[in-house]
Amino acid sequence: MTHSQRRHRLKVEIGAAGLDAMLVTDLINVRYLSGFSGSNGALLVFADDREAVLATDGRYRTQAAQQAPDLEVAIERAVGRYLAGRAGQDGVAKLGYESHVVTVDGMDALSATLEGTNTELVRASGTVETLREIKDAGELALLRLACEAADAALADLVERGGLRPGRTEREVSRELENLMLDHGADAISFETIVAAGPNSAIPHHRPTDAVLASGDFVKIDFGALVAGYHSDMTRTFVLGNAADWQLEIYELVAAAQRAGREALHPGAELRDVDGAARQMIAEAGYGEYFGHGLGHGVGLQIHEAPGIGATSAGTLLAGSVVTVEPGVYLPGRGGVRIEDTLVVPSRAPATSQTTGQAPELLTRFPKELAIL
Amino acid sequence: MTHSQRRHRLKVEIGAAGLDAMLVTDLINVRYLSGFSGSNGALLVFADDREAVLATDGRYRTQAAQQAPDLEVAIERAVGRYLAGRAGQDGVAKLGYESHVVTVDGMDALSATLEGTNTELVRASGTVETLREIKDAGELALLRLACEAADAALADLVERGGLRPGRTEREVSRELENLMLDHGADAISFETIVAAGPNSAIPHHRPTDAVLASGDFVKIDFGALVAGYHSDMTRTFVLGNAADWQLEIYELVAAAQRAGREALHPGAELRDVDGAARQMIAEAGYGEYFGHGLGHGVGLQIHEAPGIGATSAGTLLAGSVVTVEPGVYLPGRGGVRIEDTLVVPSRAPATSQTTGQAPELLTRFPKELAIL
Repeated sequence: MTHSQRRHRLKVEIGAAGLDAMLVTDLINVRYLSGFSGSNGALLVFADDREAVLATDGRYRTQAAQQAPDLEVAIERAVGRYLAGRAGQDGVAKLGYESHVVTVDGMDALSATLEGTNTELVRASGTVETLREIKDAGELALLRLACEAADAALADLVERGGLRPGRTEREVSRELENLMLDHGADAISFETIVAAGPNSAIPHHRPTDAVLASGDFVKIDFGALVAGYHSDMTRTFVLGNAADWQLEIYELVAAAQRAGREALHPGAELRDVDGAARQMIAEAGYGEYFGHGLGHGVGLQIHEAPGIGATSAGTLLAGSVVTVEPGVYLPGRGGVRIEDTLVVPSRAPATSQTTGQAPELLTRFPKELAIL
Repeated sequence: MTHSQRRHRLKVEIGAAGLDAMLVTDLINVRYLSGFSGSNGALLVFADDREAVLATDGRYRTQAAQQAPDLEVAIERAVGRYLAGRAGQDGVAKLGYESHVVTVDGMDALSATLEGTNTELVRASGTVETLREIKDAGELALLRLACEAADAALADLVERGGLRPGRTEREVSRELENLMLDHGADAISFETIVAAGPNSAIPHHRPTDAVLASGDFVKIDFGALVAGYHSDMTRTFVLGNAADWQLEIYELVAAAQRAGREALHPGAELRDVDGAARQMIAEAGYGEYFGHGLGHGVGLQIHEAPGIGATSAGTLLAGSVVTVEPGVYLPGRGGVRIEDTLVVPSRAPATSQTTGQAPELLTRFPKELAIL
């Protein structure tokens, strides 16, 4: 889908909502709708046939022209105010704005700009985020590349013996990050988690100088960034011999993760997808040790809609890309998380009448317990 | 200064502003005042003797207790709403909030929480940012370490012949980033700029596969992160022989940068500091090729108060840390930027009656044109 097609989808949405135009100030949303990726920008999209206007400052004159060649580019420092003023001049009656992004002070500035015009500011929070939930073919291609870079890097790390007793979490993290760049990532997607031994029980542990030891769980949560798109994967390894308690929670988390993946049907209630994995962990008596949601959307942001948790409202959409990442964390001992990024299929599961479709697995590194 | 002392300074500020408490929701400000560095948190600071309350969610229970051992830690997902509710219960009449950070939707949630209480929400934008402008001894120590890591990495890169024809911008960028980590950085501070040949004329160029060639300017803008504190430095090199036009603009920018550094006096008008460098470039006929401000504050953020530009209001404060970074960019040919991070001294320049004090230079890599 071209950026113009994405803007067309937004035109339809805002027209249906009774808006005449929408002021997009969230930079990720601006990028999604225009291609422009600078650090200052806003976009005015009209419900009717008028083409959108992109505003950015002088630093990005060349870049904006290259990335959004089909749009008028206005060079202004106060991009939101400028475009609100344009909407006022252009006779927009109802102007949607991102009330989940615009600050109270920012809102004052927009209101002041529109004083004396007939333009009314109307809340339109989450409108673009909802469009972004379903990924188009171009986005899926980039998400595949991001996941491939992560897969290849982890395979390379293991093959060259990078996960071994005596190394520090930080050393492993740096090597893995460099390998992602070697395998085509533009950058890392987020701060890599390498958590060894008891640290593996901390869900969001930052790598330290802790040394990997025989018998440790080593939990690695990492991602690659390709052309703005993220990947997200977690694998947990054991160094040397696995103890019985390690085998037990590993197999449990693996089974729960499989159940979560198998629950990825279009139309499924988000909380039921979470429940499919959570129930299995709870029934095994480890419910209190799985303290976070099952997953989240992945795209231009590492965490985006939908959130998949026990209290999430809404249903899963065909063509959305989400993670499935249950974990069991035993404080002071160690923890396991297994996480994949997957595409929600367009067909429901098989019945006696129809053939089903499995979610496309984007992170393909094996999930069998690897004892290194 | 301890976090408690920083909070005490805020108590004085908000008391003087007629507030009974302040709700801090900006994460950098929360970190500055409490030490807590998680990705979800808020802080309620009272004007009177009551100790502050930190709120964060369950993922950060252990981390919050470690980083802010002197504070009550409340575990709640909706941290801002929870603390607003606490303020309501605790009889706070006037509750300051960060209107430059809180979104319109977020403000609704705070207002709804306080409905039926006697607590009034009062704008207090920029209050903590103003405190942060003057760095205390602990902050200066970390800023020195961050700048030292960057200095050492660039020296190492040059010494090992890392800047030579035939390498790509991307290769140089990766090597420099790895060297910063080798020399004590926790992470890189921002996306490294390595811009060769005509690309050096683009102020914010992202490294590409463009190959460094003899005769090129190579402009490198980079920084290290140490314990949350940033460094910021730019150096420009020439590969092989420098042409006359290159020598001319290099010497001009170097002289303008020196003039900017020498203008760093406590009490100086920000626009005059900018003017000291800008005037020199303008008088040489290159004014139109210096299109950005002269500098900015550096601390827990890579760009923070004060901004030093042609239209900046306000004066420079003793003990603030700022960059001085003029540039001349000739489109299609090449550009030069020279940037240091410095501490504004506590004394004005020397007069016949007093001795003066020079700003402390934190980024010490030489600025003489290096022809490699």
